[in-house]
Amino acid sequence: MLDALKQQVWQANLDLVSHGLVTLTWGNVSGLSDDGEVLAIKPSGVAYDQLRPEHIVLVSVETGEVVDGKLKPSSDTPTHRLLYQHFTGIGGITHTHSTKATAWAQARRAIPCYGTTHADHFYGDVPCTRPLTQKEIEDAYEVNTGVVIVETFADLDPTAVPGVLVASHAPFAWGPTAAKSVENAVALEAVAEMALATLALNPNILAVEQHLLDKHYFRKHGKAAYYGQQ
Amino acid sequence: MLDALKQQVWQANLDLVSHGLVTLTWGNVSGLSDDGEVLAIKPSGVAYDQLRPEHIVLVSVETGEVVDGKLKPSSDTPTHRLLYQHFTGIGGITHTHSTKATAWAQARRAIPCYGTTHADHFYGDVPCTRPLTQKEIEDAYEVNTGVVIVETFADLDPTAVPGVLVASHAPFAWGPTAAKSVENAVALEAVAEMALATLALNPNILAVEQHLLDKHYFRKHGKAAYYGQQ
Amino acid sequence: MLDALKQQVWQANLDLVSHGLVTLTWGNVSGLSDDGEVLAIKPSGVAYDQLRPEHIVLVSVETGEVVDGKLKPSSDTPTHRLLYQHFTGIGGITHTHSTKATAWAQARRAIPCYGTTHADHFYGDVPCTRPLTQKEIEDAYEVNTGVVIVETFADLDPTAVPGVLVASHAPFAWGPTAAKSVENAVALEAVAEMALATLALNPNILAVEQHLLDKHYFRKHGKAAYYGQQ
Amino acid sequence: MLDALKQQVWQANLDLVSHGLVTLTWGNVSGLSDDGEVLAIKPSGVAYDQLRPEHIVLVSVETGEVVDGKLKPSSDTPTHRLLYQHFTGIGGITHTHSTKATAWAQARRAIPCYGTTHADHFYGDVPCTRPLTQKEIEDAYEVNTGVVIVETFADLDPTAVPGVLVASHAPFAWGPTAAKSVENAVALEAVAEMALATLALNPNILAVEQHLLDKHYFRKHGKAAYYGQQ
Repeated sequence: MLDALKQQVWQANLDLVSHGLVTLTWGNVSGLSDDGEVLAIKPSGVAYDQLRPEHIVLVSVETGEVVDGKLKPSSDTPTHRLLYQHFTGIGGITHTHSTKATAWAQARRAIPCYGTTHADHFYGDVPCTRPLTQKEIEDAYEVNTGVVIVETFADLDPTAVPGVLVASHAPFAWGPTAAKSVENAVALEAVAEMALATLALNPNILAVEQHLLDKHYFRKHGKAAYYGQQ
Repeated sequence: MLDALKQQVWQANLDLVSHGLVTLTWGNVSGLSDDGEVLAIKPSGVAYDQLRPEHIVLVSVETGEVVDGKLKPSSDTPTHRLLYQHFTGIGGITHTHSTKATAWAQARRAIPCYGTTHADHFYGDVPCTRPLTQKEIEDAYEVNTGVVIVETFADLDPTAVPGVLVASHAPFAWGPTAAKSVENAVALEAVAEMALATLALNPNILAVEQHLLDKHYFRKHGKAAYYGQQ
Repeated sequence: MLDALKQQVWQANLDLVSHGLVTLTWGNVSGLSDDGEVLAIKPSGVAYDQLRPEHIVLVSVETGEVVDGKLKPSSDTPTHRLLYQHFTGIGGITHTHSTKATAWAQARRAIPCYGTTHADHFYGDVPCTRPLTQKEIEDAYEVNTGVVIVETFADLDPTAVPGVLVASHAPFAWGPTAAKSVENAVALEAVAEMALATLALNPNILAVEQHLLDKHYFRKHGKAAYYGQQ
Repeated sequence: MLDALKQQVWQANLDLVSHGLVTLTWGNVSGLSDDGEVLAIKPSGVAYDQLRPEHIVLVSVETGEVVDGKLKPSSDTPTHRLLYQHFTGIGGITHTHSTKATAWAQARRAIPCYGTTHADHFYGDVPCTRPLTQKEIEDAYEVNTGVVIVETFADLDPTAVPGVLVASHAPFAWGPTAAKSVENAVALEAVAEMALATLALNPNILAVEQHLLDKHYFRKHGKAAYYGQQ
């Protein structure tokens, strides 16, 4: 079963590349085992075109120790661990530096919901964290990146808003599986690009009305969903 | 003959991908049978790289019932049906969330005709619908999306302006066949991108003069057309 | 020899596609025979992926009559003819609706020389024509498109500035051969894109100093050129 | 050993193309021999799809004379030479006209560090040189391009900020090897694109705090680096 997880996470990392979200080695995808005890993640700094399923590193969610694999896990592993510990119901996480979502993160602005593309995937604003303090950065940077994300979701449901912008850094997205987290990262980049152009055309545009947000989000999610083949 | 229609609609859906208008599964193309009784459309939420001609669903234009096919039709099928019922002379419809056209839709602005690329395909502004009311959204969202499009064309000829922006949503384009509707969706995205950059360079630019619009549109359309090999 | 010309013009049209300058069928390249009597041009409205060398149409520069070929030549042929008649030293012409150059044309702005990329290819502004009058459009649209281009170059050397923006329309570029005209169309689009972003970053930026323009232009052109292998 | 260098430089030039940083022949990569006496560089004006390892030209760093190779070296060779002479610790240089970095160069603005993508590669602003004087341009243009770059780094460490924008021209990037200089050129273009969009979203955004810059830069560089597999 862990071999299957490695395979899925390897595939999800490659999908990130084929969706054009990755420059050089800036990005990583992880997936969680069914029992929630182990995460599988890309090794640090390995080129995507040389990545093979056996390179995927297994890490204990509780202790952070490498359970299986010869390479060092992504330097962002502590962030992934913290999110798996706090966000119930997620099984995959994708981190990228995709261009337009990163621009919103650098501008330290949340992405408002300007249309149905956004509403189909994110139930409201994609929020932007506060900047980390100097102490947080120096003490335990990657753990504290997770801490400010969790703090940002104090009053938000991470399964309804499966993504975030880390201020001055870049986006994280998640989902029930590694593959779904990649889809949400793709959606986040598309939404970021559309919102940038929308503001250029109409700087006074407001977020969509709640009823349109509800309709599109619940068309695809929850018990009354009727999109797709299920 | 319906098999040929399925094949054409399948091909048109794939062309949408090769023209770069589709992210994930956000888009669908339909085509109308020669007698106007049946529409063929992409199934809901199926990945394009797994789409085969036999997956295309046939739906009765009059009743909305599935006539043939094992999968659920696109959730946007009621919008397609309504457009086929009201817009005489159209035989194909394409819906996308292409980036720049969607930005105009989200900004709730019609795209003015700023040049001949636009005039070659759309005889005047590509209009933007009014937003749907809460009641319209809750009662019958997809049907009412068609209703506001038809309302927007009360004084417009849909064969002369083969596309529209649905406010806070995305574009629809159409044409005499499924393939031609894809071409118009491609043109709409290109025109939206050019118009965005045109406004950045000259915020005071006006739409082109009527005589240039007439010349370019009628160079390609109608009895006096002289573009192409016919 | 005319077969070789057809082959070159066919190849140049395909290069236009591989350089990403073409959407649908919006673009055409022509080339001139060595004796200057015949031009070879893409047929009107033929899809690039179906274009074969034998489809290229030969047209008399003097009379405009088709000399060889079963298809109708591009509807822009009269513009090409007029340019070959007036611009000595050019042997190829490329017309596209490439996105960013078209945006400048639609904004009715000349592209100033903001840097060496521009200076390497265009010795000064890439000018924008005046709009055609209603009478010019109605009388002989394509011929008069050529007329306003020639008028724009009354005090300019078309071999030093091998491109133009036709107001509310799109760019034309030219060069000593069909292949070189494609290169100049590629350069024009790149320069248009860079200039758009340059203005966004610095709306008060001026065109480069004359000595930088001279240096870069004459590094690649004229007797003292020292770029490349000649 | 020089054959291996030729091979590396050839590969690095091709990588430039596959990363989408090159239009036509606008770009070149060089690499330095281990003893620092010879640089290997792309020949001038040769199309990338015809470039073979044996075309790479070897040039003496001290005298500028061609040591090996039948073709003329890149016209930018004197700039490369000067940088190798003054910047200790660099072993590869990449020059491109990549779109967004060139736009910053044309706007004559340094790129501030707006986020961790930038901090991962450049320890602070990517500076922009002063414009060359008329005399500098006329006397020895390519040498003096190197001179103003070196002048710009009077108080900067070129190994910590491995790139620069030459005013009204384009970027140069460098690194310990030819391959690493290409990576820095890729990072520079990405950072330039993100910064442009960041400013559009928040014109008042400031560069990141020193502690975030320190953290990200030293996560990847220096003795305490912990990114990657080393």
